[in-house]
Amino acid sequence: MARRPTLEFWYEFASTYSYLSAMRIEAKAEAAGVCLRWRPFLLGPIFAAQGWNNSPFNLYPTKGRNMWRDLEREAARLSLPQVTRPAAFPQNSLAATRAAIYGSDQDWLVPFSKAVFETEFAKGQSIAEPPAVAAILDRLGLDGTAILKAAASEANKGRLKVAGEEARSRGIFGAPSFLTEDGELFWGNDRLEQALAWASGDRPGLMR
Amino acid sequence: MARRPTLEFWYEFASTYSYLSAMRIEAKAEAAGVCLRWRPFLLGPIFAAQGWNNSPFNLYPTKGRNMWRDLEREAARLSLPQVTRPAAFPQNSLAATRAAIYGSDQDWLVPFSKAVFETEFAKGQSIAEPPAVAAILDRLGLDGTAILKAAASEANKGRLKVAGEEARSRGIFGAPSFLTEDGELFWGNDRLEQALAWASGDRPGLMR
Repeated sequence: MARRPTLEFWYEFASTYSYLSAMRIEAKAEAAGVCLRWRPFLLGPIFAAQGWNNSPFNLYPTKGRNMWRDLEREAARLSLPQVTRPAAFPQNSLAATRAAIYGSDQDWLVPFSKAVFETEFAKGQSIAEPPAVAAILDRLGLDGTAILKAAASEANKGRLKVAGEEARSRGIFGAPSFLTEDGELFWGNDRLEQALAWASGDRPGLMR
Repeated sequence: MARRPTLEFWYEFASTYSYLSAMRIEAKAEAAGVCLRWRPFLLGPIFAAQGWNNSPFNLYPTKGRNMWRDLEREAARLSLPQVTRPAAFPQNSLAATRAAIYGSDQDWLVPFSKAVFETEFAKGQSIAEPPAVAAILDRLGLDGTAILKAAASEANKGRLKVAGEEARSRGIFGAPSFLTEDGELFWGNDRLEQALAWASGDRPGLMR
C-alpha cells in the first residue's frame, strides 16, 4: 500500500473556528487520502507574545460581533448544529487541553476533542472547570477524574509547554492551523480544503 | 425582467485580499445573477480607531509572513498571475482612492480599480505617488492629470470621508467586505462566495 501523507491539525479548544474544523476534518481527510495528526495546544501564550491578553474577538468588538454571526452562518452552511454561544468567551481551555495532551496517543483523543467542542459551541456549556472536562471524559466511558489527575502532573504539563513552543517555532500564530509534512502552514478553517489538497500533492502552479 | 439583487463590494487598494476579490468578483457575480456596487474606501482610519498605526500584517510579522505565502498560494489556485510583492507595504492608497471615489459613478471605476490592483500586486509597482495613479488612468484613455486634480478637490475629499464614516457605521472593520441589501456583512476574500449566495437568496437554514 502506498504511504498516505499526514497533515497536522493544530487546534485550541477556546477557538470557534477550530470547532468548525474539528467537526468536519475527518471526512474531508478521508476523502483526500490524508492521515491526520490532531495537535491540541494553547493559543494564550502565543497571543500574549503578540501583545494580546484576550481574544482578538474581544479586543476588537466590531470584529467579534461579525465573528459570531459568521460562525452562525458557517455552521448552517456546513450542516453543523446551530451554534449556542457559551456564557464566557474565550473559555479557559487549560484543563481540557491538558487532558488532550495526556491523551495524544490514545484512541480517545479525537472523540474527546470533538465532545469538548460540541459541549462548548453546540450546547453552549462551560468547558472551563475540571469537573466539566471530567464529565465529558466519563461520558466516553473513561475515568475522567483519574485522567485529569494524570493530566495535571508535572510531566504532562511539560508536554503541553513543549507543544506550545513547537507551535511557535513552526510559525503558528492562530488556530486552527494546518501543517504539512513539507512545512507548509495554512491558517484558519477556511484553509482546511487547501491544506488537504497540498498534503495530497495537489499544488497548482506552486512548488516549495 | 426580475430585479437583480445588489451586493456592495468594499475594497481598499492597499489590501492584498481585496486584490484577490477584485480580480474575480465580476465573473462570480454574473454567474450568481447579482449586481455589484464597487465601494472604494480607506482602511487606515478604521485601523487607527482599533489602535493600529500600520497593517496588522506588519504589526504581527508571523501573521504577515504567512499572509504573503497564502497570497501566493491563493493566486495560483485562482489562476491569477504570480504575485509580485511591491517594495513597500502597505502602499499609500490615498491618491488612488480619491480617484476611485471621484469615479464612483463612472464606467471607468472598475477597470481603473482592477488596473491599480494589478499594477501593485501582479507587477509589484508602486501606486503611492499621484503620477503612478495618473499613468494608470492615462493608460485607460482618460486624462489622469485632470482626474487627479478634480479628485483632490475639497468636495471629493468630503465624499471620501463620508464613505469612510459609512463603512464604520455599517460595521466594516477590514477589507474586502461585502454588504448585502439586508445588511448582512461578510468579511474577507474567503467570504465572496457566501456573500453572493446570500445576496441571491441562498441562505441555508438561516434568516435575518
